[in-house]
Amino acid sequence: METTSVSISRSPLTNREYPLPVNGNDKKGIDTFISLHPGKKVVVVQGLGFVGSVMGLVVANALTEEYAVIGIDLPTSSSFWKICSINEGVFPVIASDPKISVYYQNALQKKNYYATYDPYAFSKADVIIVDINLDVKKQSSFHNDVEDYDVDLLPFKKAINSIGKNCKQDVLVLVETTVPPGTCQKIVRPALEESLSQRGLSTEFLKVGHSYERVMPGPKYIDSIQNFYRVFAGTDEKSADATEIFLRTVIKTDEYPLTKLGNTNATEMAKVLENSYRAMNIAFMVEWSRFAEEASVDLYEVVNAIRMRPTHKNIMLPGLGVGGYCLTKDPLLASWARMNLFGSEERLNQSEKGVHINDKMPLYAFEFLQTQYTGSLKGKKVLLLGVSYLNDVGDTRYTPVESFYDCLEAEGGEIAIHDPHVLYWEEKDTWVNQDLDQMLQTDYDLIAITTGHREYRNNSKLIEKLLAKPRLFVYDTIGVLTNEEIKLLSEKHVVKVIGRGDL
Amino acid sequence: METTSVSISRSPLTNREYPLPVNGNDKKGIDTFISLHPGKKVVVVQGLGFVGSVMGLVVANALTEEYAVIGIDLPTSSSFWKICSINEGVFPVIASDPKISVYYQNALQKKNYYATYDPYAFSKADVIIVDINLDVKKQSSFHNDVEDYDVDLLPFKKAINSIGKNCKQDVLVLVETTVPPGTCQKIVRPALEESLSQRGLSTEFLKVGHSYERVMPGPKYIDSIQNFYRVFAGTDEKSADATEIFLRTVIKTDEYPLTKLGNTNATEMAKVLENSYRAMNIAFMVEWSRFAEEASVDLYEVVNAIRMRPTHKNIMLPGLGVGGYCLTKDPLLASWARMNLFGSEERLNQSEKGVHINDKMPLYAFEFLQTQYTGSLKGKKVLLLGVSYLNDVGDTRYTPVESFYDCLEAEGGEIAIHDPHVLYWEEKDTWVNQDLDQMLQTDYDLIAITTGHREYRNNSKLIEKLLAKPRLFVYDTIGVLTNEEIKLLSEKHVVKVIGRGDL
Repeated sequence: METTSVSISRSPLTNREYPLPVNGNDKKGIDTFISLHPGKKVVVVQGLGFVGSVMGLVVANALTEEYAVIGIDLPTSSSFWKICSINEGVFPVIASDPKISVYYQNALQKKNYYATYDPYAFSKADVIIVDINLDVKKQSSFHNDVEDYDVDLLPFKKAINSIGKNCKQDVLVLVETTVPPGTCQKIVRPALEESLSQRGLSTEFLKVGHSYERVMPGPKYIDSIQNFYRVFAGTDEKSADATEIFLRTVIKTDEYPLTKLGNTNATEMAKVLENSYRAMNIAFMVEWSRFAEEASVDLYEVVNAIRMRPTHKNIMLPGLGVGGYCLTKDPLLASWARMNLFGSEERLNQSEKGVHINDKMPLYAFEFLQTQYTGSLKGKKVLLLGVSYLNDVGDTRYTPVESFYDCLEAEGGEIAIHDPHVLYWEEKDTWVNQDLDQMLQTDYDLIAITTGHREYRNNSKLIEKLLAKPRLFVYDTIGVLTNEEIKLLSEKHVVKVIGRGDL
Repeated sequence: METTSVSISRSPLTNREYPLPVNGNDKKGIDTFISLHPGKKVVVVQGLGFVGSVMGLVVANALTEEYAVIGIDLPTSSSFWKICSINEGVFPVIASDPKISVYYQNALQKKNYYATYDPYAFSKADVIIVDINLDVKKQSSFHNDVEDYDVDLLPFKKAINSIGKNCKQDVLVLVETTVPPGTCQKIVRPALEESLSQRGLSTEFLKVGHSYERVMPGPKYIDSIQNFYRVFAGTDEKSADATEIFLRTVIKTDEYPLTKLGNTNATEMAKVLENSYRAMNIAFMVEWSRFAEEASVDLYEVVNAIRMRPTHKNIMLPGLGVGGYCLTKDPLLASWARMNLFGSEERLNQSEKGVHINDKMPLYAFEFLQTQYTGSLKGKKVLLLGVSYLNDVGDTRYTPVESFYDCLEAEGGEIAIHDPHVLYWEEKDTWVNQDLDQMLQTDYDLIAITTGHREYRNNSKLIEKLLAKPRLFVYDTIGVLTNEEIKLLSEKHVVKVIGRGDL
């Protein structure tokens, strides 16, 4: 799938290619950058992904202090272009939040956001924010059909060691990565102390804190970091205090007060617990969706009625599945930690089960289609509306549409895809058409709505166009169509909706 | 346990005994009552339990219409006293809601709330509201340790048949009982139609609706019926319309708009789904409570931090278990219906599992105690603070304290119980002391807080008294104690809290 050589990193934004540095260093670049900001504290953000790159932006636009910010990532084909991009004036994340561009322009003007691959940067840091990934490997190439999984801490430990080998002895290391509970106390702090000792430095002044972000890519990207509640803790009192002081300079804590917890196990648990809760609430609805289909019930109207109760406002709707980086793995991180870091013989069974149920949702959606669609799907023209896992956002990480797509492809369907927010579907290495009108000039046998984007909701022009088509199968996997639209479409087409029995 | 003869029904409020009627009828009483209310519509409420008796009160105090209300129940030793009590001017439910007494005094003055055991009342009814119980039998006398269960529809069907044999052909039968989804369409309506046909009457004018209550015994008892959102549906359009018209006369629909659903399967499903959701959310926290205990985490502070997120406000706290009439059985009703009324081969596994996990919570609480308490509990003096399943309410139905009590008793503990809201613990046939000061004059080996009543929270006098005691084991099963209180108590006593590891 990857066509560029491994020694090249290509920007999907500009298509520019960057040769990877070989045995190089960026000492000069870093020193020059720091010399531009005398007297300012240096904050290094480790990891330039969805969280780190934007976190760097927020720190460069801190509220009550001026920082010199360095973003650091590995010089790999998938990351190196981001480093170059930041330094060349092109922010490496596309987002609908206009604040991103405002903040980036500010940083460019102040010249206080630099990016590098050289761990030498850690030696200059007063604060290091850890925003790298910590992944769960599900034991199958087909990521949506597995009951077993593993947590590989090695890349994370390597990243922490890279800090320990370079950092000052009195640095504050603030871990924001979603980690297995226990990680800061049992892994990060001991590893850093060991490195410091090996370097002949004191471990007494080291500060390790944990505070998790609640980043939501989308129109409120920046606000989801800067204007939202934060939970934090330290591995000791000194670390907690340093973490609090730093966070207060960056986050609007007058409106969104900080919550301090007793230890880092607690903050780490809070993060995976809140995501497990959400994952479980989604999983809980899966069997009710089946029941509704069997009992001629429209589960969407039922859920909306239940949501009138303030205590039940967050009950979930039926759907195609769960995507994104958090809900698909965080419960597993927690369960893994319970057994591997705290020696329990019990898993978090319920929470694991939630992930497994959610992973199978797109498979159910496909099976349901097979029972409803007359004849084979082989050679049938299929249009998928939406590949993002989230409404009104272009984020395809672990999107459930992928499994659904794979099933359709395996059956021989000829699949076209549309998504107004996705230019390029990285995981499938394919370009996505964004012009719905153009796509609807073709006739299809099956049109499936697979993301709940605004463009597909209450769109009378879309309904009109569908009605002008020859008889086809309309499959709404997420309850986007209204009762009136279903009624209209059903006069000509076959319409099936997940979680809604034939009334 | 029951000491009165079966031919007697004794009021626990007045201790008066009423001989049960044998082969009697109440035609005269009913006719006299109705003659007092010429021109008024007659509403019969079937079932005088926690819902029906108060529903009758609300209808007798309807907002936009004057009704003649008859409450009807069976002439059994457990129910007959309620019938007599209503007619004698003593309302059969004790509740902290002052509106109950106001509404009852109104009804007494207007003489528009009569009670009877004679199904002849149905023949006079324009509206019949079904508020009887529909129970799930868990397959064990020890109700909290079973994985299997059965739904016995027979008593419910008998009650419906009693209506069918007597009602007018154009009556509106409004089912409020929490029933297995499908019941109104597949059981109630066919049964009533059959009875009408057998009586040579038309089935054309019969109306059967479903609208579930969301009654919460407690300080807002009346409001939980009259001033709250309602969902309704009919078995046909005519039934839905009649149901809506009736509900509008009784419920404050301008502030709490009605929600109409497509069919009665949907409203029946909504009720059991919302309770299943809550039961599941409680069950979900059980394994996290264990994890917190293992990881030296205070799960209460973690949950409170997570609740800052508007989407996570209803995440549950650790606790002793789940009680009451709804959460302990509604998920099972739903699963049973899926298999038995809709022929599915699948249970609602997740929802059933939720009930089973919750049922086992008090057993865990006891096992945890055993691992923490040094020595045997045999002959030890134990004080349980709270027997109600709910804070600040005297409701012992299916209270988890019962299983915990049974475990302690089986181990030979000498148990004293206190509850400011419970006079008499029906299920254990025992009187409950309500004077905490008096009870604390005794010394105990173990004091367990088993209900989160206000009286036990932030009560510095209680803490003082506990500190004056000889060394004892304080067991907080629901997180009532604050960190400061735990710290204070720990200086002298052993303190353990469910869901909170030793920090």
